[in-house]
Amino acid sequence: MFQVHPSPVAAPFATSWQTRYQAVRAQSQALCAPLLPEDTVVQPMLDVSPPKWHLAHTTWFWETFLLKEYVPGYQVFHPEYAFLFNSYYNSLGSRVNRADRGTLSRPALADVLAYRAHVDEALTALLAAPEALPPVFFELLELGLQHEQQHQELLATDIKYILSTSPLAPAYLRNELKVKSEELTGAISEAATDFNSSLLTFNSNKASWLPVPGGIHRIGFQEEGFCFDNELAAHDVLLAPFELQNRLVTNADYLAFMEAGGYRDFRFWMGEGWDLAQAEGWEAPLYWVKKEAGWYRFTHHGLQAVNLAAPVTHVSFYEADAYANWAGARLPTEAEWETAARHFGPATENGTWLESSCFDPQPVPGDADPTQCHQLLGDCWEWTYSAYHAYPGYARAAGALGEYNGKFMVNQLVLRGGSCATPESHIRVSYRNFFHADKRWQFTGIRLARSSNG
Amino acid sequence: MFQVHPSPVAAPFATSWQTRYQAVRAQSQALCAPLLPEDTVVQPMLDVSPPKWHLAHTTWFWETFLLKEYVPGYQVFHPEYAFLFNSYYNSLGSRVNRADRGTLSRPALADVLAYRAHVDEALTALLAAPEALPPVFFELLELGLQHEQQHQELLATDIKYILSTSPLAPAYLRNELKVKSEELTGAISEAATDFNSSLLTFNSNKASWLPVPGGIHRIGFQEEGFCFDNELAAHDVLLAPFELQNRLVTNADYLAFMEAGGYRDFRFWMGEGWDLAQAEGWEAPLYWVKKEAGWYRFTHHGLQAVNLAAPVTHVSFYEADAYANWAGARLPTEAEWETAARHFGPATENGTWLESSCFDPQPVPGDADPTQCHQLLGDCWEWTYSAYHAYPGYARAAGALGEYNGKFMVNQLVLRGGSCATPESHIRVSYRNFFHADKRWQFTGIRLARSSNG
Amino acid sequence: MFQVHPSPVAAPFATSWQTRYQAVRAQSQALCAPLLPEDTVVQPMLDVSPPKWHLAHTTWFWETFLLKEYVPGYQVFHPEYAFLFNSYYNSLGSRVNRADRGTLSRPALADVLAYRAHVDEALTALLAAPEALPPVFFELLELGLQHEQQHQELLATDIKYILSTSPLAPAYLRNELKVKSEELTGAISEAATDFNSSLLTFNSNKASWLPVPGGIHRIGFQEEGFCFDNELAAHDVLLAPFELQNRLVTNADYLAFMEAGGYRDFRFWMGEGWDLAQAEGWEAPLYWVKKEAGWYRFTHHGLQAVNLAAPVTHVSFYEADAYANWAGARLPTEAEWETAARHFGPATENGTWLESSCFDPQPVPGDADPTQCHQLLGDCWEWTYSAYHAYPGYARAAGALGEYNGKFMVNQLVLRGGSCATPESHIRVSYRNFFHADKRWQFTGIRLARSSNG
Amino acid sequence: MFQVHPSPVAAPFATSWQTRYQAVRAQSQALCAPLLPEDTVVQPMLDVSPPKWHLAHTTWFWETFLLKEYVPGYQVFHPEYAFLFNSYYNSLGSRVNRADRGTLSRPALADVLAYRAHVDEALTALLAAPEALPPVFFELLELGLQHEQQHQELLATDIKYILSTSPLAPAYLRNELKVKSEELTGAISEAATDFNSSLLTFNSNKASWLPVPGGIHRIGFQEEGFCFDNELAAHDVLLAPFELQNRLVTNADYLAFMEAGGYRDFRFWMGEGWDLAQAEGWEAPLYWVKKEAGWYRFTHHGLQAVNLAAPVTHVSFYEADAYANWAGARLPTEAEWETAARHFGPATENGTWLESSCFDPQPVPGDADPTQCHQLLGDCWEWTYSAYHAYPGYARAAGALGEYNGKFMVNQLVLRGGSCATPESHIRVSYRNFFHADKRWQFTGIRLARSSNG
Repeated sequence: MFQVHPSPVAAPFATSWQTRYQAVRAQSQALCAPLLPEDTVVQPMLDVSPPKWHLAHTTWFWETFLLKEYVPGYQVFHPEYAFLFNSYYNSLGSRVNRADRGTLSRPALADVLAYRAHVDEALTALLAAPEALPPVFFELLELGLQHEQQHQELLATDIKYILSTSPLAPAYLRNELKVKSEELTGAISEAATDFNSSLLTFNSNKASWLPVPGGIHRIGFQEEGFCFDNELAAHDVLLAPFELQNRLVTNADYLAFMEAGGYRDFRFWMGEGWDLAQAEGWEAPLYWVKKEAGWYRFTHHGLQAVNLAAPVTHVSFYEADAYANWAGARLPTEAEWETAARHFGPATENGTWLESSCFDPQPVPGDADPTQCHQLLGDCWEWTYSAYHAYPGYARAAGALGEYNGKFMVNQLVLRGGSCATPESHIRVSYRNFFHADKRWQFTGIRLARSSNG
Repeated sequence: MFQVHPSPVAAPFATSWQTRYQAVRAQSQALCAPLLPEDTVVQPMLDVSPPKWHLAHTTWFWETFLLKEYVPGYQVFHPEYAFLFNSYYNSLGSRVNRADRGTLSRPALADVLAYRAHVDEALTALLAAPEALPPVFFELLELGLQHEQQHQELLATDIKYILSTSPLAPAYLRNELKVKSEELTGAISEAATDFNSSLLTFNSNKASWLPVPGGIHRIGFQEEGFCFDNELAAHDVLLAPFELQNRLVTNADYLAFMEAGGYRDFRFWMGEGWDLAQAEGWEAPLYWVKKEAGWYRFTHHGLQAVNLAAPVTHVSFYEADAYANWAGARLPTEAEWETAARHFGPATENGTWLESSCFDPQPVPGDADPTQCHQLLGDCWEWTYSAYHAYPGYARAAGALGEYNGKFMVNQLVLRGGSCATPESHIRVSYRNFFHADKRWQFTGIRLARSSNG
Repeated sequence: MFQVHPSPVAAPFATSWQTRYQAVRAQSQALCAPLLPEDTVVQPMLDVSPPKWHLAHTTWFWETFLLKEYVPGYQVFHPEYAFLFNSYYNSLGSRVNRADRGTLSRPALADVLAYRAHVDEALTALLAAPEALPPVFFELLELGLQHEQQHQELLATDIKYILSTSPLAPAYLRNELKVKSEELTGAISEAATDFNSSLLTFNSNKASWLPVPGGIHRIGFQEEGFCFDNELAAHDVLLAPFELQNRLVTNADYLAFMEAGGYRDFRFWMGEGWDLAQAEGWEAPLYWVKKEAGWYRFTHHGLQAVNLAAPVTHVSFYEADAYANWAGARLPTEAEWETAARHFGPATENGTWLESSCFDPQPVPGDADPTQCHQLLGDCWEWTYSAYHAYPGYARAAGALGEYNGKFMVNQLVLRGGSCATPESHIRVSYRNFFHADKRWQFTGIRLARSSNG
Repeated sequence: MFQVHPSPVAAPFATSWQTRYQAVRAQSQALCAPLLPEDTVVQPMLDVSPPKWHLAHTTWFWETFLLKEYVPGYQVFHPEYAFLFNSYYNSLGSRVNRADRGTLSRPALADVLAYRAHVDEALTALLAAPEALPPVFFELLELGLQHEQQHQELLATDIKYILSTSPLAPAYLRNELKVKSEELTGAISEAATDFNSSLLTFNSNKASWLPVPGGIHRIGFQEEGFCFDNELAAHDVLLAPFELQNRLVTNADYLAFMEAGGYRDFRFWMGEGWDLAQAEGWEAPLYWVKKEAGWYRFTHHGLQAVNLAAPVTHVSFYEADAYANWAGARLPTEAEWETAARHFGPATENGTWLESSCFDPQPVPGDADPTQCHQLLGDCWEWTYSAYHAYPGYARAAGALGEYNGKFMVNQLVLRGGSCATPESHIRVSYRNFFHADKRWQFTGIRLARSSNG
């Protein structure tokens, strides 16, 4: 049996499971509400799946792992959907080539929404009588909710990429009150620069190094509630003393690297990163565009002047690592990161997460405490210099769910902390996200570390 | 000046130009009416453009070549659209990479329709006072209409391909009265087989060879009205006497080739065709699917049992040529084809074109005259064994329209006759269509020729 | 039976066949004599086969089509060689992927030479008693000789390409007496420029247009002796009157095109040619290198100053066509070319061929007759604007030799006239060479035509 | 300054440095002695460089880093060689594209040997008066020797791959006394099977698990003499107790995995490995060939029956990992491996290395002690489940040598132990070799680990 959580999941009242299920499901659709049907179909690069596909795939997950197992005589919505919406489970048969997801106009968005309604109806009915269901059902239920939330983050970042490919730079969030945001329709206000200048004082001057003691530390999931199998089991690691910067690298910091020729000096780069950056002509993070008035970047709010005090984001590991080398520092390992996050405590968490709910990580306030560690959780996924490998004692689950995490445990790097696009319940100190070193379309950022006395 | 027609175009009444313009424009949108917005976005292979793109590109053509030239102070609908919807005119600047047309969800279909309305309004206004316009304007107007009609055929074939990629095999024409058609939803009627049997008698037994005398013949445009520059100038060719089959190769004929191992015997194939067929695993024409009950093919009406008496279609030149070799015959040259079409007269034309309006070429009726040449016009584009080269004396037009035809005059083959998806005014004996030898997504068919005494 | 020649081959004396066989075979090896073993192995691009492969493949041809057929109990030299050295005959089984020919260091050159000796011994023995052999044997013998000569031209051009890839620009013909040649070792003599200036007078001033009457002309093989099946059968063509330039386009002519921006102006180019030229960064013919002192080109004699009066060579069809468009002319069709070549008579032939034996086509002498047509045979393969298609009545031979020519008869263009690298007996007015429009590594050149009054 | 070793290098007598230099240089050439010139040119896959290139590149290293720095007025052998033979040093300018190394026939092998002689003469002269040279020179000298030895291993493995591509399966070591080896010329002796059977007893029955205690262990270079910068600095790691198998996985073991369907069951595989194995059609380790008589593999001695008792080799990380999963075990981390190697002591080393000098790792003798850990050093590079990342405190050297190791420290995995092709002085417990997970052409093998109680 797939152990998705170390302790029994509390499910005291039927209504609470039902309510939570409905809320999560509704959130996926809410994320797509600002989209046109056209936006839900395309796949402008391999990593980006059509929103329509995300809506259907998450539904297929419920159908496959819960309804077909626990509803006697359950009729699947459509016999071809298992082929169409299986993501990567070899256990569950053949499927559409990943690169072809964006070539399929049908089933249409309306069909997918009908599919969602069909499955939601069945699951809601099932959850009306939870006492009849075995404990393992609730483990799968929890996994299904977490899975759907993972796809919510992908929806946010995939939608951003999809909208960015148009020269029209359409905004996803049009009506939001964001004082300093503006769409680039002709003239650009000078406010952006002023805005940046005021905040810059804090950020440039007060970036501080916070010491973390060495010794044996315990990392991995140690709390109550849900975690993924890849966070298990908690185990001890030995660390030398080190220091971590008290905030993320800002756009101003990164611009200094750019202006110092960081993209043209191979000495700071991993070889494979350098070759890729040359081949792709990288000169700035993803989404950055140089205009006469300065640097802009595409956001969920359309094209915006770069906020110098905000954390740099949409950088690959290669860029994060090159920046760190240029800055005379390094990236933390995941053990260092988690140790520091546990060391500096959960108070930090509250400070930033709510600010980031606009899909745009915000600067540390100018009056923030320089002895505190900011932006650890819910701002940017922070690249670590740790390969995404199995923890000691890790074992793949039996059955199809054994393919959920384990088969990816090579050739990728761990990212920590969660981003402004991560659902709140996905943000915890032990969470291990992972991407290949070249990926830039997530809200990935940089935090510097350095060895003490090093 | 671009000579799109050899004689002055009659434009007697302002209303007639206006009406014709509006009719052609409406037809493009009518073709997209059965589609969902999702269908208008995707590009499942390089040759297939999103319907939304066709709707916008034809509009850009009007805006660029007519409105910007003849409406003083005309404001383009959007400054980025020239970049987005230029197809291949180097004269008119940079443009979206062709392979990326299907990655752009924006501008949305509604935006494109607004673009169409904007341009239609301006052109309709212009055409309200045609007397103020110079003759060259009407040449461009005629070209614009013809251009839009070319894209109507592409819309028909691209839509077919787009719908075909879904395993759901959705029908484009759902409500049409087509007695023998049925969608493949579970059981398949046996009627298809009966239908085929009855027609088969005529087609299999009565395919006849019609002689065409040798000597000097004149080909190229020699009529009144519009033609493309590539049909000019009419010139003499010397032909040896030859024979042409009185009908297109049928599905029954082609099935015999398949069953005789035609796809597995390299001796019938051009080398490049053979290599491609092996690499792609070709075993039948495009859109054919083998079911337990026999061969089916995807059509605008959904999945249909193969009608044995109907012309085979969606074959590449390689397949057409291999079939001809297997059958002990050959494909005609374009000079032979045009000479024969002129020889057998326009009476043939009426017989078939109306039958084909369902985007599905129909069989020759069982009581047809075997001494007549059937299916010459408006059934299938017939592959010829002639390279698409310039006619003697051809010269590219000056300016951007010089890129319309001339730059494609190498590495492609001529097809003749028009298909069931070709707008009627595009069907004439001198019309030269052209595709690369490997293309299969048009309504391409096969007519056999042989040299007399050869 | 494969009809390689229309009339019986004269084979009066056994010794003459034997001698001729030995001479042709010796010539292949002589071409490789200046090479190091290293040079015989590599394949720097797909079109270029390793010289070692050519030496072995031609030998395999003899073994396969003659020895195995006509020597009872013949033992093949090595059972794997049929796999290794079959070029493209599907009839004869699987073979090394063409792209992998340059990855095989074994069999070594010495092994290949032993293979040649083995086969030569057997064939020489067979030819000692020719009276015992049937007529068809001599047809195959002739074909084998012609085949080996075709590979001699490929050896010459492939060796040139192989040597060109090294920045050392090594010369193949080091000791040749060529007054104006010099290797680029440091300083470059100014003599080249002087040399060019003197010849330029004739070539620039005296290029003349020679009229060719229209009407019905007969093309195709009409002589005694050998021809390939693709030259058969002779047939009539109808031509409008046209004019042909009396010499090939020179380097000076072509330089004017280059300096006029010909490589940067899409209006002169076929679309596919333009895209390729941009993608590959073409700015000059293959092998041209710009130095401070001017343009040089890599030759069999090493790097040489461009001889302005000599014919331009190593241009693709795309470049030839663009040049012609720029010059306000066009390329001839193959029917025009052959008609002109027959019209201007064989006297022209003698003038140039001997001069070209240095693998470097030479200028027309300054005192040449401007009413004569020069450089028709044996200088450069002249691109025509005719697709390489079957002549009327062409039929593939039965068996493996049916793959010799017929399966290539689409997507390529005909070249006429033979080059300085073509063995003399391969040069005839009816000979049809063929390459894809993008190929540049053969000695390809340009001759202009124009329609009379047109 | 580049710290290639932590303690001063002893260089007591001039003659000893000179002798050592000459011995290492001679060894590179000795490795190529059995080759034909043809063998030294080709590059049958990207990872495999032509032997001629290795001979030249190592020479360029000496010329660039020592002669140009320490010989006043040194004249480089040829000005183009820096372009031709720079491997990957961006600091030292542009260079031949790696994929094109196998297209260059020139400079020829003889030229490269002349280059070597030129450089050897200069360096030998320099080493005749070592007292005039600064300490840093000897550090570079040592690095040059180590570098040349690394290329000796690559020469051995690249030569193997080159010879393997020919269907002739030529042997590199023809005259060696290897009782059980035979070339596959027709019949295959049954001895191989007998040989295997006798040894199999020990290996199958007696594979044992050796415990290694947990706790804090010190890894990294801690000895006297040379090491690469990537082995520095020694540091403590915390390990849980674990067990290591006392020998490498044998061919018999691996065959059991194959026969159990290991290559067809995705559950054992990393996702990227599975996809690659499917795309490439992997069914066995590299070089294995199935014959009627059983499995054979290509070796330096030609095609050989698989020795069941010998360690399996030429497996990728993906295969090693899949095997371990199938066997219910795992691969060790590099810290575990080094800790175990230090724990089980150097006595093991002597046992195996000499046996392996034939470029073919040998079985553990039947009477070996099952409580000892065998084959740790000098048999196969053992895949670990550790990413090749920088050790704590690692810093790239300044200048071009900073590119030696540091820029590769992502996306690869560490291998430990040295192989039968590794020069003896390269084999030490702290040595970190690294390859991408898909590489198979090195002598890579598998050793199993498992967590205690786990």
